[in-house]
Amino acid sequence: MSTTAQPPAPSAAGLPRGARRIGIVGAGQLARMMLGPAIELGLTTPVLATDAGESAAAVAGQMRLGRHDDEHAVAALARDVEVITFDHEHVPAEILEAVRDEGLAAVRPGPAALAHAQDKLVMRERLRELGHPCPRWWRVGSREDLAAALAETAGRLVVKTPRGGYDAHGVRIIDGPDQADDWLSDHGELLAEELVPFTRELSAQVARRPGGEALAYPVVQSVQKDGVCYEVVAPAPDLDAAAQQRIQALALAIAEDLDVVGMLAVELFETADGAVSVNELAMRPHNTGHWSMDGAVTGQFEQHLRAVADLPLGSTAPRGPVAVMVNLLGGAAEDLAPGAHAAQAADPELKVHLYGKSVRPGRKLGHVTLVGEDATDLLDRAHRAERLIIDGPSVADAVGPDTGGPDSGSPETAAGPAPTFRPIPAGPSKETR
Amino acid sequence: MSTTAQPPAPSAAGLPRGARRIGIVGAGQLARMMLGPAIELGLTTPVLATDAGESAAAVAGQMRLGRHDDEHAVAALARDVEVITFDHEHVPAEILEAVRDEGLAAVRPGPAALAHAQDKLVMRERLRELGHPCPRWWRVGSREDLAAALAETAGRLVVKTPRGGYDAHGVRIIDGPDQADDWLSDHGELLAEELVPFTRELSAQVARRPGGEALAYPVVQSVQKDGVCYEVVAPAPDLDAAAQQRIQALALAIAEDLDVVGMLAVELFETADGAVSVNELAMRPHNTGHWSMDGAVTGQFEQHLRAVADLPLGSTAPRGPVAVMVNLLGGAAEDLAPGAHAAQAADPELKVHLYGKSVRPGRKLGHVTLVGEDATDLLDRAHRAERLIIDGPSVADAVGPDTGGPDSGSPETAAGPAPTFRPIPAGPSKETR
Repeated sequence: MSTTAQPPAPSAAGLPRGARRIGIVGAGQLARMMLGPAIELGLTTPVLATDAGESAAAVAGQMRLGRHDDEHAVAALARDVEVITFDHEHVPAEILEAVRDEGLAAVRPGPAALAHAQDKLVMRERLRELGHPCPRWWRVGSREDLAAALAETAGRLVVKTPRGGYDAHGVRIIDGPDQADDWLSDHGELLAEELVPFTRELSAQVARRPGGEALAYPVVQSVQKDGVCYEVVAPAPDLDAAAQQRIQALALAIAEDLDVVGMLAVELFETADGAVSVNELAMRPHNTGHWSMDGAVTGQFEQHLRAVADLPLGSTAPRGPVAVMVNLLGGAAEDLAPGAHAAQAADPELKVHLYGKSVRPGRKLGHVTLVGEDATDLLDRAHRAERLIIDGPSVADAVGPDTGGPDSGSPETAAGPAPTFRPIPAGPSKETR
Repeated sequence: MSTTAQPPAPSAAGLPRGARRIGIVGAGQLARMMLGPAIELGLTTPVLATDAGESAAAVAGQMRLGRHDDEHAVAALARDVEVITFDHEHVPAEILEAVRDEGLAAVRPGPAALAHAQDKLVMRERLRELGHPCPRWWRVGSREDLAAALAETAGRLVVKTPRGGYDAHGVRIIDGPDQADDWLSDHGELLAEELVPFTRELSAQVARRPGGEALAYPVVQSVQKDGVCYEVVAPAPDLDAAAQQRIQALALAIAEDLDVVGMLAVELFETADGAVSVNELAMRPHNTGHWSMDGAVTGQFEQHLRAVADLPLGSTAPRGPVAVMVNLLGGAAEDLAPGAHAAQAADPELKVHLYGKSVRPGRKLGHVTLVGEDATDLLDRAHRAERLIIDGPSVADAVGPDTGGPDSGSPETAAGPAPTFRPIPAGPSKETR
């Protein structure tokens, strides 16, 4: 694994170095998974939650109720801490600029960096300026624009809302210029992209401090399911050292160019010739980095806190030859606990992470990880655990990870993808958390 | 590493299997370090704290104020959960028996088991009945008893209060029969033990579920400093496989014989002939097991929760060839953060765990761990980090771990033991948390 580090420059005047109180805007599972590492680091991390029952709100030591798009709620959190950071990228820039300009707290990542994770058109424009590889893309504001783009792409396009999307939301494949009228009406302009004929998706995580110190994690392979991150293998199989270093360098360059502080995830398409292009950016811990909680010396949640607190970064070295992560997406079981216990009993090395969320089909409810020697074996075990947990032990019992037996649950939940490194069919991929 | 597992028997009637709400009596650092794993397991873990500023109380998602020896406070916690467990062993047995008998919550470990960790005379009597190796010991109730015991031990004895001791408290070396009058007056009976001429101290941790499933961790070597756990190496260096298995079997037998549920730590003396004898028992996560947070697949805090919730136990396999733990005992620095940052900067693999406690000399304020290949190297690095953190970066800068240079802090804090596997001089050792 290749990593690079630059000596930190002095912090900008007035910004806290080694901050101890970090406010987290948003209280989903990403905020939740920061809480354990924050306790060990001795950091205080109040969360801003819309509802006291949200994933992080229910377990946080300190919690404020308020919306992420309410300037007063965000300002009240900011006044109580030295740094604010994020569970998601949906806080309006003007709210963050006000927090920064009024000196209420440092904003990490800052609003100028965050714009590239908030607005896909801003991201594409900037990556083009920087010369980083992207799919062919168009800024479209009308049916005519869409028709013109469709004429260049064999009649199919991926269309994305510039803002507000997550997981499968805000992404659509169209084959006619009238199939995005609703979004054009709502958003004015959309991002249209070619369908990249990718053979697989990769993801590169890096962490960066305010002064510029940055470290890269091993590049991972990810598999999406219905537009949602589903399976990750770290490091990406069959990725040679030169390619790994090239991709890490790309992610580090983006972090530097955009002045990211915290974790940055760069999701990538890899095509048959080995080339990569940037799909999405996320400036926070990311689903494709969950493996690091158990599989790296410093998990991404601890690392994000260290980066935004302006503490020295921790080693990104893996704890074993291979780590895998499989998401627990809502299925037949209304209660995950019985299946989790069955999975833990079947595999003592399994690490189960539950988010405390109510079950809805396809919803991210948790994930499992395994660290070991052989990716195929680890994926097989992780998918067995997944089935037990999301289908429930009585349904999933004896059903393999990629077959829907007579006793299996609904077709959507029982017929998951095969847990192997098969090529992924070309199609859209969406941002994941 | 040898471990044994027995298939779980059905839970006793009325006791929750796979409990989800675990109340923790006490809010010290042991309760604190359960909080992160509880979040990931999806368990709710309210803590009973005497003061809202206590180590775990300050960061817990749910906290009740009340004393561990107030039957009403413990009962109120118990009514709110399915299982109660402990940060320490000082809850009076009658309070726990009432919780159990009234069916308010399962008590794990149960009061009958816990008695052996609460009362050293009960522990010694029971271990003798079971035929487990102990130092020579006497139940003493008078100066005459002490004089008789002193006559058998070359004039020196370790005297311990049966109850209420921790770390260096409640342990004294005497060379005259009138040197324990105060304790005789307070306690009536004391435990007197020979000074074991041990060459080092070992500790064996095991986890056990209600039905009997049990797993052993690798046996570790521990070093005490002023009666407080200071340094641990896992696995214990130069302990052959047969000895390791014999000691693990001893700890598993004690857990079974005493019907322990949760983590059990068996602290042992090893003498020059390789024989071991039991020094102390603790029925909770223990300082000598902190290495497992970063050095084992399942850390002891997660494992304790799994055991008391009656969930399947996790693998106790180590994550690397060697793990070390060094305690951060209060020294010159009044604020640990600057030194922690310096230590993190110097060693990106270092894992720092801070307890959020105010600094007092010798007080347990946190610990550091490292996992790697070579114990000597890891200990050297861990002690460098320790110095930076407890002396502060300006004092500790360039001072080695076992030398007190001209810029070093107070003699007590700067002149730590050499970070090597030297034989430990004979002397008393006391229970540690």
